[in-house]
Amino acid sequence: MSVITLLTDFGLQDEYAGVMKGVILAINPAAVLVDVTHQIDSRDVVQAAFVIHGAYRFFPGGSVHLVVVDPGVGTGRAILALKAGGHVFIAPDNGVLTLLLEKIQTPSLFRLTNEAFYLRPVSGTFHGRDIMAPVAAHVSRGTALEEIGVPIDPEQAVRLEDLAPVICADGRVEGRIVAVDSFGNLITSIDSATLARACNRGPMNKVQVKIGRQTINGLSQSYGNVAADRLLALVGSRGYLEIAVNQGSAARRLKVKKRDVVRLIP
Amino acid sequence: MSVITLLTDFGLQDEYAGVMKGVILAINPAAVLVDVTHQIDSRDVVQAAFVIHGAYRFFPGGSVHLVVVDPGVGTGRAILALKAGGHVFIAPDNGVLTLLLEKIQTPSLFRLTNEAFYLRPVSGTFHGRDIMAPVAAHVSRGTALEEIGVPIDPEQAVRLEDLAPVICADGRVEGRIVAVDSFGNLITSIDSATLARACNRGPMNKVQVKIGRQTINGLSQSYGNVAADRLLALVGSRGYLEIAVNQGSAARRLKVKKRDVVRLIP
Amino acid sequence: MSVITLLTDFGLQDEYAGVMKGVILAINPAAVLVDVTHQIDSRDVVQAAFVIHGAYRFFPGGSVHLVVVDPGVGTGRAILALKAGGHVFIAPDNGVLTLLLEKIQTPSLFRLTNEAFYLRPVSGTFHGRDIMAPVAAHVSRGTALEEIGVPIDPEQAVRLEDLAPVICADGRVEGRIVAVDSFGNLITSIDSATLARACNRGPMNKVQVKIGRQTINGLSQSYGNVAADRLLALVGSRGYLEIAVNQGSAARRLKVKKRDVVRLIP
Repeated sequence: MSVITLLTDFGLQDEYAGVMKGVILAINPAAVLVDVTHQIDSRDVVQAAFVIHGAYRFFPGGSVHLVVVDPGVGTGRAILALKAGGHVFIAPDNGVLTLLLEKIQTPSLFRLTNEAFYLRPVSGTFHGRDIMAPVAAHVSRGTALEEIGVPIDPEQAVRLEDLAPVICADGRVEGRIVAVDSFGNLITSIDSATLARACNRGPMNKVQVKIGRQTINGLSQSYGNVAADRLLALVGSRGYLEIAVNQGSAARRLKVKKRDVVRLIP
Repeated sequence: MSVITLLTDFGLQDEYAGVMKGVILAINPAAVLVDVTHQIDSRDVVQAAFVIHGAYRFFPGGSVHLVVVDPGVGTGRAILALKAGGHVFIAPDNGVLTLLLEKIQTPSLFRLTNEAFYLRPVSGTFHGRDIMAPVAAHVSRGTALEEIGVPIDPEQAVRLEDLAPVICADGRVEGRIVAVDSFGNLITSIDSATLARACNRGPMNKVQVKIGRQTINGLSQSYGNVAADRLLALVGSRGYLEIAVNQGSAARRLKVKKRDVVRLIP
Repeated sequence: MSVITLLTDFGLQDEYAGVMKGVILAINPAAVLVDVTHQIDSRDVVQAAFVIHGAYRFFPGGSVHLVVVDPGVGTGRAILALKAGGHVFIAPDNGVLTLLLEKIQTPSLFRLTNEAFYLRPVSGTFHGRDIMAPVAAHVSRGTALEEIGVPIDPEQAVRLEDLAPVICADGRVEGRIVAVDSFGNLITSIDSATLARACNRGPMNKVQVKIGRQTINGLSQSYGNVAADRLLALVGSRGYLEIAVNQGSAARRLKVKKRDVVRLIP
């Protein structure tokens, strides 16, 4: 099997994602193609970093994941191939791999260099089609990363700052909103492991979550745990703290935005 | 072959549908995945009931259809597997299977119970990923429904009220608008069989269709049967009475909405 | 292998594209289905003509391409099958194949006639599902076009006027905006071959591009070649002259629209 996933900010209006699939199938006719989403907010590498980290583990081991959120296309930025957790990730060197590099053990990282695996000629504007898609196809056919690029120290990759939540000395946790989903749920950077560590000091139903001027008391298990139209906090299906309104939109209710601070008081 | 279709109200902005596909492929690498649509109006089980009933017959026999419009996720609602017409349907017990249960002969219905076929742990917010997707994958590999759930009487399933059109004593038919498509066509609950039965009494070109304050005289064969910008009624490609404007939008013209009544006078 | 691509103006809200895939898989279970896009502007055969011409070459030889932008459905317009460049294209006879017919050598063209390959009954409103999808599936299984239709002279097909850019006597090139992508980039009808021919007379960085009241001096290699928020012209990844704003939207900046004239002065 050879699953290749696509995660981009191209949207679905244009033929960009479809053309990448054509390139892949011309190289590996047996590739099984899955869209993770093409609607990452334009150029938002932070959101993409969280989505690929939350999603990859649900795909079969050996999958190849294309992450094409690439505002630097046509500049000198490198393109990376990361092998980690039994999966391979192909992405520009702009920080979109940060969470994978930090949270998966013993990553091995390569910078793409071997143009023999690229489409020719390489355009100045669409490296997703001309470099990343064909490389993913070759990798899914079994070509070793060593043939396509050169190994580099994971420390050399561009990293996004401020992604990780901070556990303060007094036990409070400080994170940020990193995405707003189509239901208006606010996804934060506070992952369930950090939450569990912080809450070591007290029971979950005593936790307070503060966002803007609002305070939410206790964590819920599901949206239906509170009355319709009520604000709640819960560990969402991605494994991160989310703020939601049962049968409503937390984004509209709270008028907060991406990057705003969320505090958790255990 | 093992086609699995997906019908949800998740939209395409988020990675929810993509992640369900990852879960399926990890269990059945040979599954062929097809999106019916992910843009059912949020929580609209009535619309979903009509779409899956109109669409399933175009897929190969033996297909498995996932219908994840699930406002009750995290509450006690059951999850059902329905075998009918040579297809299998996996859906929450919220009425979304009503038309299939009523219109297909000898359905056999199961309530999912065997957690060995679920993803572990099961989240409180995403049973599409954690229960329905893995069960669909196992079914498409050949696992019998008897192994995954317990048989229940189809009468026990939740049914939606008022879905079926009513033929009145005077021969008039009363139905409702159940969906508005992206062209602005109004899809009604009046199916072609009911229409044919009602029109037994007179020729099709004498039929009157009443909606709001408008009356449409006669049924058309295609949009182009009337002049541009003219209102028409026809049996649409789904097999239901539709109201349309040639090269325009009936929804914008008539300012009607879902659930509004449509009357047919033979 | 048997790749079948879909290019339509159906959007993704409704189940139309999904149902076409069901029809295809019921006939050819081994078909590999790829969406090029379903968001061609409603009824815009000009845009569709450019998109399919720019996209098809990235798919494997032997692919079958469905182009269902079909405002004339239900009228007497014919449906065509075109074999050209090692690919097959199925589309209504409304001009959407114009660029393929003009730019690919030795096309062989057929008008579909053999209803044995259609779904029965054929609806009056959805020939994409009832005629084009099943024919594509049969072609991808190896059925010869000669069995499905009758050969016709390519000169007989409906052609779109004014698609080709014009090289004037003084060396200026006149084209039009044919599409606006989701980033707000303006795609013109001036292809790279015409551009190269026109610029024979002078260096590329001396070229002027005129649109509305704006003049852009010189062509860029990529968006990042100019400062953020600056207007630029470049040969885009499709092989056509595009007008863009680095990290912004040329469509919003220039307030131009599809079909507006673009002039190039070498």
